[in-house]
Amino acid sequence: MHSFKALSEKFELQFGKRQFPDFPPNLYDPAQYILGIGGKRIRPVLTLLGNELFDEIHADAYHAANAIELFHNFTLIHDDIMDKAPLRRGKPTVHTKYSEPAAILAGDVMLIHCYDYLNKIQLRLQQKVTVVFNKAAREVCEGQQLDMDMEQMRPEQVNYTDYVNMIALKTSVLLAASLQLGAIIGGGSDGNQGHLYEFGKNVGIAFQIQDDYLDAFGDPEKFGKQQGGDILINKKTFLLLKALELCTPAQKAHLHDLMERNPDNKVAEVLQVFHDCKVDAWAEKEKERFCNIAFGHLDDIAVLSKRKEPLRELADFLLTRQH
Amino acid sequence: MHSFKALSEKFELQFGKRQFPDFPPNLYDPAQYILGIGGKRIRPVLTLLGNELFDEIHADAYHAANAIELFHNFTLIHDDIMDKAPLRRGKPTVHTKYSEPAAILAGDVMLIHCYDYLNKIQLRLQQKVTVVFNKAAREVCEGQQLDMDMEQMRPEQVNYTDYVNMIALKTSVLLAASLQLGAIIGGGSDGNQGHLYEFGKNVGIAFQIQDDYLDAFGDPEKFGKQQGGDILINKKTFLLLKALELCTPAQKAHLHDLMERNPDNKVAEVLQVFHDCKVDAWAEKEKERFCNIAFGHLDDIAVLSKRKEPLRELADFLLTRQH
Repeated sequence: MHSFKALSEKFELQFGKRQFPDFPPNLYDPAQYILGIGGKRIRPVLTLLGNELFDEIHADAYHAANAIELFHNFTLIHDDIMDKAPLRRGKPTVHTKYSEPAAILAGDVMLIHCYDYLNKIQLRLQQKVTVVFNKAAREVCEGQQLDMDMEQMRPEQVNYTDYVNMIALKTSVLLAASLQLGAIIGGGSDGNQGHLYEFGKNVGIAFQIQDDYLDAFGDPEKFGKQQGGDILINKKTFLLLKALELCTPAQKAHLHDLMERNPDNKVAEVLQVFHDCKVDAWAEKEKERFCNIAFGHLDDIAVLSKRKEPLRELADFLLTRQH
Repeated sequence: MHSFKALSEKFELQFGKRQFPDFPPNLYDPAQYILGIGGKRIRPVLTLLGNELFDEIHADAYHAANAIELFHNFTLIHDDIMDKAPLRRGKPTVHTKYSEPAAILAGDVMLIHCYDYLNKIQLRLQQKVTVVFNKAAREVCEGQQLDMDMEQMRPEQVNYTDYVNMIALKTSVLLAASLQLGAIIGGGSDGNQGHLYEFGKNVGIAFQIQDDYLDAFGDPEKFGKQQGGDILINKKTFLLLKALELCTPAQKAHLHDLMERNPDNKVAEVLQVFHDCKVDAWAEKEKERFCNIAFGHLDDIAVLSKRKEPLRELADFLLTRQH
């Protein structure tokens, strides 16, 4: 069994080479570019971890992991176009560096390439693998569309349950499916696959709540971002949506006023309302709630506890970060 | 054995239902919209014809045909964004009717859905089918990028062989692969698959030359388009590229002047140069050349001549149209 770090290195060793032909460069260079600007490769390593939970790592796990990482980067390219994002990991986004048509097409060819890798997997697993991969792929698209839909709504029009569902689709189901693909390749039973999937999905939601919390209440020096970045742009977050549910009519009116006027002390004032209506404490409990669901599913996987250590360590690392 | 028309009806009967879930509507309605605005369904019917060349139509041929038609429509959505096209088949394009983000995402989810269909094909054929499908898919992306690259070049910078290659990738390899997928499912040998592929590819190139020819020299009433539409927008066509190769320096200067100045009599003047340097006669010969290659490959397919009739009829129909 290997640690996350050891598996990251193993993954990178075979993924780090050029993934695409040289010609035509205006098609393939943008695709290669985004693969080269970093990223923690969490998803593909989850596939390797999911495999190793049940058995030694099979070559097929690398094929699935490569497909997952390509898919993730494809979504980044297209999402950045839709969100008009100029930067990604501190570097120009693909459509900014090249052009929007080049970015659309590079994403397309990257998505196609995913299925080249899935097609290398042993035949008896291919249908199941593709079903799981495609379900997640479709759901990620649904999540992105629902996110765009919700952006057009006023915060109090967004139902909290719908928001959690959107976050799960947009960010968590791919983590969950990454693990499940590994489990399929490792020979895990359907029941164990299901528990592993739910573990990944709920860790993903807990992580997103933590991310929203840290953006508001985290130490900006440790977190490496401007404090209250989400607040400044009126981003719908777990905190804002729940605050609007928990707060008094007067606090609600104050929040709306702050979001409309954008005064200099907006971040401090919004944080004060968050604190007054105890949404900070709520967020910690809500994160805990999803963590408990996640670890409950991890416990229920019928393999020796020792085999679960790398997954437990990774989740602990992701979910207790203060930076 | 069935005619093109009979197979079109069979195809539509199972493809014409809604292909996507209802929710979220802003994702799936745009995808469904483009499937509903018509199209001749040539590619999926080629798959059925390719199957029936060798054997009775198998359910798998419909799976492959559906994937091909979805893929084709995916490329239309994304190409229309890249080309900033307001209309497609006389109706608003997807990004015009909905939005650009919705169109990007609808295309993505449509591409993913292709592989749901391929995943339904019997296991022993799946790997080969995916290899053929993905090769064509990648090449269509390459063709679109090369087309955009060439658009940035001046006509005389574009090498004629490179142009033919671009056209083949952008428009012909999908026709060729559609036929080949049918042949795989029908049990055609590798050799027969190869001939069928080349038949489709060369018919596609011949068709494109004819299309360029008719735009310039066709009867606008029969053709249903404005005569010289390509000339008006200085579009790089087989005719223009070859004319620049064949004409005298004086004619070349005249063409450049017309393309820059856009005078009222531009179409007539350009057509006169085309006629003077005999590019109209050349185009007819060039189309004939690709037709001969295509039909040579059709002849070489080792099945009874009678089985080839529907393909021959379709090619004759496509390549002798005056409208």
